[in-house]
Amino acid sequence: MTTTNTSAEIGAAEAAASSPDQARRRYRDGLAVPTTGWASGYAQANVVVLPQEWAFDMLLFGQRNPKPVPLLDVTDPGAVSTVLAPGADLRTDLPRYRVWRDGVLVDEPTNVVDLWAADLVTFLIGCSFSFETALLDAGVPVRNIEQHSNVSMYRTAIQCRPAGRLAGPLVVSMRPVPASQVVTAVQVTARMPNVHGAPVHVGSPASLGIGDLSSPDFGDAVEAQDGDVPVFWACGVTPQAALMASKPPFAITHAPGFMFVTDVPDADYRQR
Amino acid sequence: MTTTNTSAEIGAAEAAASSPDQARRRYRDGLAVPTTGWASGYAQANVVVLPQEWAFDMLLFGQRNPKPVPLLDVTDPGAVSTVLAPGADLRTDLPRYRVWRDGVLVDEPTNVVDLWAADLVTFLIGCSFSFETALLDAGVPVRNIEQHSNVSMYRTAIQCRPAGRLAGPLVVSMRPVPASQVVTAVQVTARMPNVHGAPVHVGSPASLGIGDLSSPDFGDAVEAQDGDVPVFWACGVTPQAALMASKPPFAITHAPGFMFVTDVPDADYRQR
Repeated sequence: MTTTNTSAEIGAAEAAASSPDQARRRYRDGLAVPTTGWASGYAQANVVVLPQEWAFDMLLFGQRNPKPVPLLDVTDPGAVSTVLAPGADLRTDLPRYRVWRDGVLVDEPTNVVDLWAADLVTFLIGCSFSFETALLDAGVPVRNIEQHSNVSMYRTAIQCRPAGRLAGPLVVSMRPVPASQVVTAVQVTARMPNVHGAPVHVGSPASLGIGDLSSPDFGDAVEAQDGDVPVFWACGVTPQAALMASKPPFAITHAPGFMFVTDVPDADYRQR
Repeated sequence: MTTTNTSAEIGAAEAAASSPDQARRRYRDGLAVPTTGWASGYAQANVVVLPQEWAFDMLLFGQRNPKPVPLLDVTDPGAVSTVLAPGADLRTDLPRYRVWRDGVLVDEPTNVVDLWAADLVTFLIGCSFSFETALLDAGVPVRNIEQHSNVSMYRTAIQCRPAGRLAGPLVVSMRPVPASQVVTAVQVTARMPNVHGAPVHVGSPASLGIGDLSSPDFGDAVEAQDGDVPVFWACGVTPQAALMASKPPFAITHAPGFMFVTDVPDADYRQR
């Protein structure tokens, strides 16, 4: 395990102004920072890499659970590039990876060149960062952005539909939304099904099996303001929870918050 | 090969008034008629059954080509039921099947009980019958329904994105739409991405590589009326064209027009 720079150490202006290619080049050179705010306006993706022997199960898990696992692209075995960013190298261009053996996190390297193999299949999964831009455009405040923190994420008591050997709980992200703007938040995100779409739940955390909003399972605690309602969206960390539960012998993922920056404009994932 | 009853031999009233379960029971008992008009208001599905050894390629083909291959459900290996119709038996409840060996059509039986095996995975794929109801509801005439004929389908010069060993041309269905209603037809079907969604093309058949609209590759020739424009949608026969091109050792599909009747209301596939 390694500690990481914080995004505060990198100029926010550089991050926002960077092109996807410029951002990936910095990460390829070893910069290990969360990708929030980088290459503003371009979609970022959750990443799961599995041996081909597990790839059918993962692909089926995505097909059966499209809200938490909206598949943007799935590569051929061994491929190091994706149609989402033809010039990118999937082994080097994320700022930080996680390596899993038998469901246990064993390393968080900044590239996975030495771990790559001809049978590895990469799954690129939509990320709610894409709809945060759309929420802001619609005038809905995004508290985690205001507070410069990672979004709050929770395991729920809801089980995903299993697929072969893969099973696990639905993980949700939560954003506090002013009560008067919940409807707008639903409408805006419903038009973006490839990046998790409409919320799965509004209000009552207890009915999702979430005990304490101030103790998220992943990410940071985000402070609600008076009159905010907690709104829950299906989250791309769900496959990582399934890996922990289902224990494939080997897997690589992105580190939460250290996403793959694609060449696809966020706007391409808004329905027309 | 066998000849089939025509739907005219079956009372249209019986067909439309039947529940999905009643319709499937008739087919299970051996009735071999096209499913158009049966269990009106419930979604029907294209079906592809492949050995597990080919299932990853097929699932990936669907993920990469969601307009022609919108996957509504994919079963576990050997399963004979689907979440789309929990009481149904996939081996008996289609009115007619097609059996393929090495990409060649070898039989069209009314059940596949004797061919079933523990490694078979079933893919259920959205069907444009669901949006024809929506078009009629919006006042757009559907010429193939008016003319009591099967929709016209054509291979195009557009290749699907390959997936493993599976590759083949995009197959489209064509409906002549009055020029003044083309916009409505686009809007209505765009809201139904799970059943092929918005058209892939409006007008000029030549630019899709289609020479003669009156000679469809599948289905019937449908007569346009004065002022109609040909509108082309991605078609669920596309996987059958890929099977013919890619020649897996064994596959089962529905016979074109003899679909699987699900318990899911068409309305569930309209975006809210």
